[in-house]
Amino acid sequence: MAMKLHGHPLSPATHRVMACLEEKGVEYEFVHIHLSTAHHKESFLSLNPFGQVPALEDGDLKLFESRAITQHLAHTYADNGTPLVPQDPKERAIVYVWMEVESQRFDATAAKLSYELVTKPMLGMTTNDAVVEEHQEKLGKVLDIYESRLAKSKYLGGEVFSLADLHHLPIVSHLFGTKTKALFDARTHVSGWGAGILARPAWQKVVEKMKH
Amino acid sequence: MAMKLHGHPLSPATHRVMACLEEKGVEYEFVHIHLSTAHHKESFLSLNPFGQVPALEDGDLKLFESRAITQHLAHTYADNGTPLVPQDPKERAIVYVWMEVESQRFDATAAKLSYELVTKPMLGMTTNDAVVEEHQEKLGKVLDIYESRLAKSKYLGGEVFSLADLHHLPIVSHLFGTKTKALFDARTHVSGWGAGILARPAWQKVVEKMKH
Repeated sequence: MAMKLHGHPLSPATHRVMACLEEKGVEYEFVHIHLSTAHHKESFLSLNPFGQVPALEDGDLKLFESRAITQHLAHTYADNGTPLVPQDPKERAIVYVWMEVESQRFDATAAKLSYELVTKPMLGMTTNDAVVEEHQEKLGKVLDIYESRLAKSKYLGGEVFSLADLHHLPIVSHLFGTKTKALFDARTHVSGWGAGILARPAWQKVVEKMKH
Repeated sequence: MAMKLHGHPLSPATHRVMACLEEKGVEYEFVHIHLSTAHHKESFLSLNPFGQVPALEDGDLKLFESRAITQHLAHTYADNGTPLVPQDPKERAIVYVWMEVESQRFDATAAKLSYELVTKPMLGMTTNDAVVEEHQEKLGKVLDIYESRLAKSKYLGGEVFSLADLHHLPIVSHLFGTKTKALFDARTHVSGWGAGILARPAWQKVVEKMKH
């Protein structure tokens, strides 16, 4: 039985899991969850008590939280497609560090910019310029550290692409369509890294699927 | 050579790593980092470019981000002390889900309460009551879901204590000394879980060490 990914075509967290499934070349069924529909929401709570997409059904295993799902996929399908977590314990430890940096440092500020500059306009809401300014300043400081890291290392987690890079994809993709892209452009290595991960065939497949 | 934990006695993230080291029964040297001292800060940046404690030196491996360090310790010292991550892939996947819940749902709001109600008074700053009220409401909703989870499962990640519980310790410990404890007290299973993890001998050792 194919895995079922319960998600929404506009949800960055859903895209994060899709990117992982495509990198692994694992087949899956996409279940479109309409969280605005009470009936959908009620039944979805059995998959994720927090009521947010995505959730994954892999046989009798029910998982939520996009970054937990990608880790499960990376371990379970270690031999399929792109290896996303190194086998070597020391290399893996470094990948974990940069996965945490994405979650604690990057996402904490970049997701707010994505919300203000992409989600709000899409929903006909007004962007709060003060919030944008505050978070652009914070993101700039994070990207300064990324620039130093990427000057020494091809990817954030080491010399090969890993979950530490993959987890950034949905928000980097959003921000590359906004004025915040200037923060990336201003930093040579960050800019090249961003363009490079967005150009990956697996991510392009996600973008293509989300058009339909 | 013993591992070196670079931290600060008042840092919750430092306590998170100490709890893990104590559960594993691994010897380590504590290096007190004074981040207010320019000299310390400068040299500390080579361990963590974000300039925040803790950081761990394990031989030639240099790690930062408390939750990445605990994962490294749990994997590297899998056979020492308390097993903090299950070997079984399905059980492990569920532990990862609740580790992400701690990071994305619990900490996002509980750490703000800890800052307002513990850190600020300690530094002679004024608590912002509006922020406290906002985050108490948010935390209450998270704890409602914890209550359902803990009614069915002894610990968050399953029937045994794991990193999913351990990562909560420093902030739960702080909040149990504030009025926010009422949110825990109002929920039977959450209250028992909180008291249970705080009573663990490993955590008691951390509390004891931090008194000196």
